[in-house]
Amino acid sequence: MPTITEKIISAHLIEGEMKRGEPIAIHIDQTLTQDATGTMAYLQLEAMGVEQVKTELSISYVDHNTLQSGFENADDHKYLQTVAMKHGIRFSRPGNGICHQVHLERFAIPGKTLLGSDSHTPTAGGMGALAIGAGGLDVACAMAGRAFHLNMPHIINVKLHGALTKGVSSKDIILKVLQLLSVKGGVGSVIEYSGDGVASLSIPQRATITNMGAELGATTSVFPSDEVTKDFLKKQQREEDWVEIVADEDAVYDKVIEIDLTTLEPMIAMPHSPDNVLPISEVLGLKVDQVAIGSCTNSSYRDMMSVANILQGKTIDENVSLVISPGSRQVLNMIAQNGGLSAMISAGARILESTCGPCIGMGQSPITNALSLRTFNRNFYGRSGTLSAKVCLVSPETAAASALAGYIVDPRTIDYTIPNDPETFAIDDSMVIVPDAQTAAETEVIRGPNIKPLPINTPLDDVIDKKVMIKVEDNITTDHIAPAGAKVLPYRSNIEKISEFIFMNVKASFHDDCLQHGGGYIVAGANYGQGSSREHAALAPMYLGIKAVIAKSFARIHRANLINFGILPLTFVNEKDYDTIDEMDELKIEHLSDLQVDVPLQVQNITKGYYFEVAHHLTALDIETIKAGGTLNLIRQHQ
Amino acid sequence: MPTITEKIISAHLIEGEMKRGEPIAIHIDQTLTQDATGTMAYLQLEAMGVEQVKTELSISYVDHNTLQSGFENADDHKYLQTVAMKHGIRFSRPGNGICHQVHLERFAIPGKTLLGSDSHTPTAGGMGALAIGAGGLDVACAMAGRAFHLNMPHIINVKLHGALTKGVSSKDIILKVLQLLSVKGGVGSVIEYSGDGVASLSIPQRATITNMGAELGATTSVFPSDEVTKDFLKKQQREEDWVEIVADEDAVYDKVIEIDLTTLEPMIAMPHSPDNVLPISEVLGLKVDQVAIGSCTNSSYRDMMSVANILQGKTIDENVSLVISPGSRQVLNMIAQNGGLSAMISAGARILESTCGPCIGMGQSPITNALSLRTFNRNFYGRSGTLSAKVCLVSPETAAASALAGYIVDPRTIDYTIPNDPETFAIDDSMVIVPDAQTAAETEVIRGPNIKPLPINTPLDDVIDKKVMIKVEDNITTDHIAPAGAKVLPYRSNIEKISEFIFMNVKASFHDDCLQHGGGYIVAGANYGQGSSREHAALAPMYLGIKAVIAKSFARIHRANLINFGILPLTFVNEKDYDTIDEMDELKIEHLSDLQVDVPLQVQNITKGYYFEVAHHLTALDIETIKAGGTLNLIRQHQ
Repeated sequence: MPTITEKIISAHLIEGEMKRGEPIAIHIDQTLTQDATGTMAYLQLEAMGVEQVKTELSISYVDHNTLQSGFENADDHKYLQTVAMKHGIRFSRPGNGICHQVHLERFAIPGKTLLGSDSHTPTAGGMGALAIGAGGLDVACAMAGRAFHLNMPHIINVKLHGALTKGVSSKDIILKVLQLLSVKGGVGSVIEYSGDGVASLSIPQRATITNMGAELGATTSVFPSDEVTKDFLKKQQREEDWVEIVADEDAVYDKVIEIDLTTLEPMIAMPHSPDNVLPISEVLGLKVDQVAIGSCTNSSYRDMMSVANILQGKTIDENVSLVISPGSRQVLNMIAQNGGLSAMISAGARILESTCGPCIGMGQSPITNALSLRTFNRNFYGRSGTLSAKVCLVSPETAAASALAGYIVDPRTIDYTIPNDPETFAIDDSMVIVPDAQTAAETEVIRGPNIKPLPINTPLDDVIDKKVMIKVEDNITTDHIAPAGAKVLPYRSNIEKISEFIFMNVKASFHDDCLQHGGGYIVAGANYGQGSSREHAALAPMYLGIKAVIAKSFARIHRANLINFGILPLTFVNEKDYDTIDEMDELKIEHLSDLQVDVPLQVQNITKGYYFEVAHHLTALDIETIKAGGTLNLIRQHQ
Repeated sequence: MPTITEKIISAHLIEGEMKRGEPIAIHIDQTLTQDATGTMAYLQLEAMGVEQVKTELSISYVDHNTLQSGFENADDHKYLQTVAMKHGIRFSRPGNGICHQVHLERFAIPGKTLLGSDSHTPTAGGMGALAIGAGGLDVACAMAGRAFHLNMPHIINVKLHGALTKGVSSKDIILKVLQLLSVKGGVGSVIEYSGDGVASLSIPQRATITNMGAELGATTSVFPSDEVTKDFLKKQQREEDWVEIVADEDAVYDKVIEIDLTTLEPMIAMPHSPDNVLPISEVLGLKVDQVAIGSCTNSSYRDMMSVANILQGKTIDENVSLVISPGSRQVLNMIAQNGGLSAMISAGARILESTCGPCIGMGQSPITNALSLRTFNRNFYGRSGTLSAKVCLVSPETAAASALAGYIVDPRTIDYTIPNDPETFAIDDSMVIVPDAQTAAETEVIRGPNIKPLPINTPLDDVIDKKVMIKVEDNITTDHIAPAGAKVLPYRSNIEKISEFIFMNVKASFHDDCLQHGGGYIVAGANYGQGSSREHAALAPMYLGIKAVIAKSFARIHRANLINFGILPLTFVNEKDYDTIDEMDELKIEHLSDLQVDVPLQVQNITKGYYFEVAHHLTALDIETIKAGGTLNLIRQHQ
């Protein structure tokens, strides 16, 4: 009677019991990193003194910082390449593609566990892997052979019925799920897909859905591994990686949602949240300034060929800038060879490298007040690099059709050919460098001048008596905390420098205030730290002296990152206490030396003169970690 | 007995006599701008109150600021598009290609005059056009129907004999000329090519040579228009644009250089000057970190196919980052269709947009201390965005062969197929928007918040009594004065902001010193202001209060820009006086109300207590311009 999730976890369980919500630890088979989080992960791996990684496969991708507006990015890439060769990690060279797309094509395996220092790691769930996003330190620990700790997730079953009609895409399925569940709806859960509709979806289509499970706040999302999976692996010349994994007939779920694909219509996520979803019919005719196609959500061969077929023989509107980033070198080369790319170029598309690009604000910021239609996964405020822009999330079909018209169009109303899946994929792993004993011995790890040593926290004090440096609302993303974009991302290996940008679009004085007051508290609403897995959103506040975050609730990965760096993640026992706190209030917590599982803490608001209660939900291991000043300190204590 | 230059000038002469070195004014048939200089040019056109441009063809390209790391670039593009539609200017959309490559393919005409706000405008000289780079204001004046003023150039004849051997490229010809003449060797001159070797060179090969005539300091470079020209135009479906233009047999030149193509070997320009040229044989085996192929110098179909044929079936070295930017949408689409692009992708190349890209430091900055091999035209210090990098200039063949090896290779030693010129080019002008009366009437010019009004100078004072804000050496480039690169270029429409970056890599305090002292003087060595045509190198110093530049000599375009914005360009009568001046010396020039042609000025060094003499070589019009505080003020006085 187990679900897919239970089957995979059961096969990897190291500690704990598979009771929903209870702490467990699992063995990790594979890890991945990308360059914006990877430098930290490998600095941490080095700090642990690990010679060779212990995983079945660890791979370091470069897909974020590829504009290289300064030496910092290229130096990071060189560090990543050399540290990978030194420690037995494969290195996917810049230009080889977006980590999740390449991993899906070449490395993801049904039934395996994958931990990635990127929140969209669940993309590989489209293949039937249990693929989880985490902070870089957790990934470093997994590479070191340590178990990954999490709470046994609840399991939400999404049952798909029927098949998509022409012009409706798997992107519309996940937008529908986001409309139903919201960005908090998946917290603490795995989303498992089933139903007769599954068989009609190709692996990349499934991966679009599991990819954006991250936007639900889910631990991960997973599809069965079936004949479609087998066929995809066969076409990728790795049929031997296939195993069948399906939930038992009598599997028990915590919640079941049913979606009829046959009647589903194209959907759109309006600014500034991926769950602000409407049917496309409600926004038809809205003028569009930019259309951006690609990202780990929608950059597969099938997505690209749908776009190429829609653009074929036509010309984009005069007032639309259309940019397309094919997801991987495999995809790019296939569409270069079959005429798809030429159809895009002929229509007026600007072809970008096979990277994350505009999805993380790494270039292609739209005009002031733009409406930017994107096939990406996030439309958070400011993420495009243009604060005044309105970013909407749609399918590739909606995007391409709208680029031609100059306004939002229902792709069901246009004439185009649905692409066939290819008979075989173009296999070429020559841009993935495989280390061996000789490279490990011969490689010297090269560190550019922007790659700074890791800052390390001090052990937890008994008393925290400090001021509230910032108070923020619900659904604050790690983009709010540690912005992405071309101006900030180059400093991902330099915590001192990146700390200057923390909360810069929310409260510009945050950095200076922390320096002046020696850090303090962050007070937040619900779902604090949703979005990207970037541990910089914990590491840089730690560097600035933040000792505790008091929130209504936390997003999973960010909470884990706070613990990893020795910051207390506290939740209001009575949410109304949130309303009574103001910025710069002085809060005092005592007796932290006695911090214990399930025992709440008293917080004294010295400025206002009252007490309130906060919970911490920390495990014994979490408490030990925070007392030590973070995971790295704890590991060193035990060495 | 006239030369090509004399024939074209004669047909366009409006004022003056064609005596070498004497002031003349010529009619301009065509203009071009790019986005990094274009916004200023069109702001100036608007300031002149011109409704519709008076030229046969004016075209606004977008090729510099295409990374769009913020709203500023996209807003600039929108401004450029709308202002073009309003005033009868064609608009080449972002992604359509590098201005000079596209202009050569689609718009350059033998015998026509072309003025462009980019120093590499002479690229069209490969077609037999008289194509001159100038500041944006001069281009705006040309669009307004005004004559272009210059001194009748001297004419240097480069006679080419024989034909290139396999592995040797037209890039090696111009590098050889640079070795012979130096970056000052072309000042005040047009370089005319002739000889039996000309017929063996295709139009794009010729354009590579005239393009880098800019690096000689030449006014322009020009090839005959012959049967090869006719054939190229025919393949571009514009045979009707062809006229024959060759120098008379008895044409008189000021200097003649002979180059035997048959014995020419591959050349390389070493850091940090394009005339620091060595034969490739002297640097074979040097380890290479980055190879960058493209730019207005070497991004034609032929260049790309040479590279594709060299890369075909091979894989680049593990330690080389290879980036390729095809020069235009025409080139990109042709190599997408014929398999050339796929060969590049398969070899591991990263394919960038059809833009200037890394040539102007707009991305792809190499690693710290890199050796970067580039097919570009400039290797000035810091231009790559990595101050510690060593940039070398080579042919596409040398670049591609070295990318495979990982070290510098002589392309004559490798096996590859020389590409054939195509039977026909892929014609598609759909990304060039053509304005008409209706668009002029209906278009509203859109200005983003970063597009600031033009700063305007005050009329010349009778006395300048100010300090020396900076003293610099010989061969200072406009990149030294007003750096390019991804961090600065977005502010090209905002002089106040860009003034913060003036001389930032030479004297970081320059901006603040100017603010503190209310501006003053710049003292410089020979060839001051070589390189890019960017008028920001005059406009921003003017904004900061610079009143005069005293140099040993000036580069042509920059000197014209100084005059255009009301800054005195003075030269030492006795160059030894350069040695006695220090930064922050107080210099005084009096009686400027009486400034007259051919009358030198006395400068009092108040700090050191002595006088020295400076010449100005200003024409009567120049003097009138400077007294008015610049060209725009002068035009307004006469309106």
